[in-house]
Amino acid sequence: MQRVEVQLGQRSYPIDIDTGFAALPASLASARQVVIISNPTVAPLYLDQVSALFSAPPLHILINDGEAFKTLASFETILSFLLENSMSRDVVLVALGGGVIGDLTGFVAACYQRGVRFLQIPTTLLSQVDSSVGGKTAVNHPLGKNMIGAFKQPEQVIISTATLTTLPSREFAAGMAEVVKYALLGDAAFLDWLLKHSEQICQQQPETLAQMIRHCCQMKADIVSRDETEQGERALLNLGHTFGHAIEAFMGYGNWLHGEAVAVGMVMAAELSAHRGWLSKQDVASVRRILQSFGLPVAVPDQMQIANFMPFMKTDKKVKDGQMRFVLLSAIGQASLVADVTEAELLQVFG
Amino acid sequence: MQRVEVQLGQRSYPIDIDTGFAALPASLASARQVVIISNPTVAPLYLDQVSALFSAPPLHILINDGEAFKTLASFETILSFLLENSMSRDVVLVALGGGVIGDLTGFVAACYQRGVRFLQIPTTLLSQVDSSVGGKTAVNHPLGKNMIGAFKQPEQVIISTATLTTLPSREFAAGMAEVVKYALLGDAAFLDWLLKHSEQICQQQPETLAQMIRHCCQMKADIVSRDETEQGERALLNLGHTFGHAIEAFMGYGNWLHGEAVAVGMVMAAELSAHRGWLSKQDVASVRRILQSFGLPVAVPDQMQIANFMPFMKTDKKVKDGQMRFVLLSAIGQASLVADVTEAELLQVFG
Repeated sequence: MQRVEVQLGQRSYPIDIDTGFAALPASLASARQVVIISNPTVAPLYLDQVSALFSAPPLHILINDGEAFKTLASFETILSFLLENSMSRDVVLVALGGGVIGDLTGFVAACYQRGVRFLQIPTTLLSQVDSSVGGKTAVNHPLGKNMIGAFKQPEQVIISTATLTTLPSREFAAGMAEVVKYALLGDAAFLDWLLKHSEQICQQQPETLAQMIRHCCQMKADIVSRDETEQGERALLNLGHTFGHAIEAFMGYGNWLHGEAVAVGMVMAAELSAHRGWLSKQDVASVRRILQSFGLPVAVPDQMQIANFMPFMKTDKKVKDGQMRFVLLSAIGQASLVADVTEAELLQVFG
Repeated sequence: MQRVEVQLGQRSYPIDIDTGFAALPASLASARQVVIISNPTVAPLYLDQVSALFSAPPLHILINDGEAFKTLASFETILSFLLENSMSRDVVLVALGGGVIGDLTGFVAACYQRGVRFLQIPTTLLSQVDSSVGGKTAVNHPLGKNMIGAFKQPEQVIISTATLTTLPSREFAAGMAEVVKYALLGDAAFLDWLLKHSEQICQQQPETLAQMIRHCCQMKADIVSRDETEQGERALLNLGHTFGHAIEAFMGYGNWLHGEAVAVGMVMAAELSAHRGWLSKQDVASVRRILQSFGLPVAVPDQMQIANFMPFMKTDKKVKDGQMRFVLLSAIGQASLVADVTEAELLQVFG
């Protein structure tokens, strides 16, 4: 087992990465009331194994699979289930699934009786390397992704690489977009490592995957420890996300996977960076190439013009004092937050 | 102007109590985006005055008046309004109204884009002495009051005693229940003061009211500073609330005012305390008398048996390890949290 610690004072917690589900500390395993929140795809595969981690038999509730169900309606469904089953403030909620289940469960854990404990057991690559770590929780609104949420840290994150064997390859690729993101925004050496190991990664070699996941979790844990509520540095984790969120929202949540949209978003961020002379054309080409090597899209959907991006980007959470802010690349492996991108510049680059 | 400081480190804030609306600091007055959340009863009276506190003209949205509208549906209505009007993470939300508006606005402020600034401008006595201070925010669920919420501290609380001149007398009395609560739970000398000044209070003498409100805010601020998230002492502020919430929920939110239900709840807590030999019959009689002197009910509604209380009390947020917990009085002016009350004892006292 490999362990990464997220250092947040009293709210610190471990991420345990193993080839199966690591055992829980007694404080969680012996909880009187446990509710597992999962979906009909993941539950048949892992619900029994996860239930067995607890001494008392947990209850469970399934939410339909997919980004389209990361809504206030699902949030309310879970809250009603908790109340109907007389769950107290001692309850431990368990998110068993991908990013949708994790974000939704975390937001419920933040709000149920003003806050209860929860555990992240991410079963997709994307949630293992990104959304399960750092305490961002949210649901979507028709007018914007993740617009309703809270910062709520889990008690622990349990990652089993074995869950990736049952993940559809399209979902695996989508997770790789976030892996590549870490390399692009802050670790050029990791980009080389990814290029060198791309074959083992695509073949899903367990040791290689565990090493890769550990590296991403460590990078994210370090950033989150320094900037939990995204006052500065943490915003860099949004590389590719401003454009990506617009693609997801415009195409209808769930039609494009989050990672696919982020992959295209990172190419757009690279193109904008190149337009400013920060990246070379070769750099942009290599961003495209590595994403393609993991089976990811690199072109804006045919249906979308830059004008279609604008309404979404104007309500992006990074907007400050009326000004859109973008994460661009000052070099490969080095991101920075930029506040002077204008609509005119976007038209020039993408129009 | 009188000022009470709520000491919470980086989240500290002042409560300004005056006969009008005190001026705002520049950091709030100059906000680019301001949204006032109010109701159709309060807005015609005070919206213009409050809007004038800001340099840019604020937007506003009105939510129907009453506890019945402190719901997830209203929460969603406000969130949609903020997104439709492209409000960014810089927005300042202003709660202008009573506890319903304050709790709802605070919960929106906690969740919109994972947290934005907000200002409490309570216009009822109850919200001035209680709900606007301390950062508890929530909405109700059909299965329980305040079951969905967050701890979210405001930037500032602005209290104008002038708003009490437009408050219906029934609402004023309901607020007095919370005032009496402070005396019963922690300050016997304040109970004497209330008895001595009951005439001036009922006549709403501005100086007396300001002094009374300041005293309550100071008591609450002190308790909240020591125990923000209710790990211990803060639970004492729930004196009368376990029974009271059951009355409110059973009778249908809004039919009994919160303060009226709490008044009866405090009498029940006193009776239970007397059954344990902690209070004398005279003590219970004087609890009844002071509540009645402010026009408050002191008897359980005719429609309710103790059995009707049970389902609500079993899902109370104070339930821990399956055990109901009650705030009882070990003496007049001294509350304590008790975990060994059984259904049998409740039947014996109230059956």
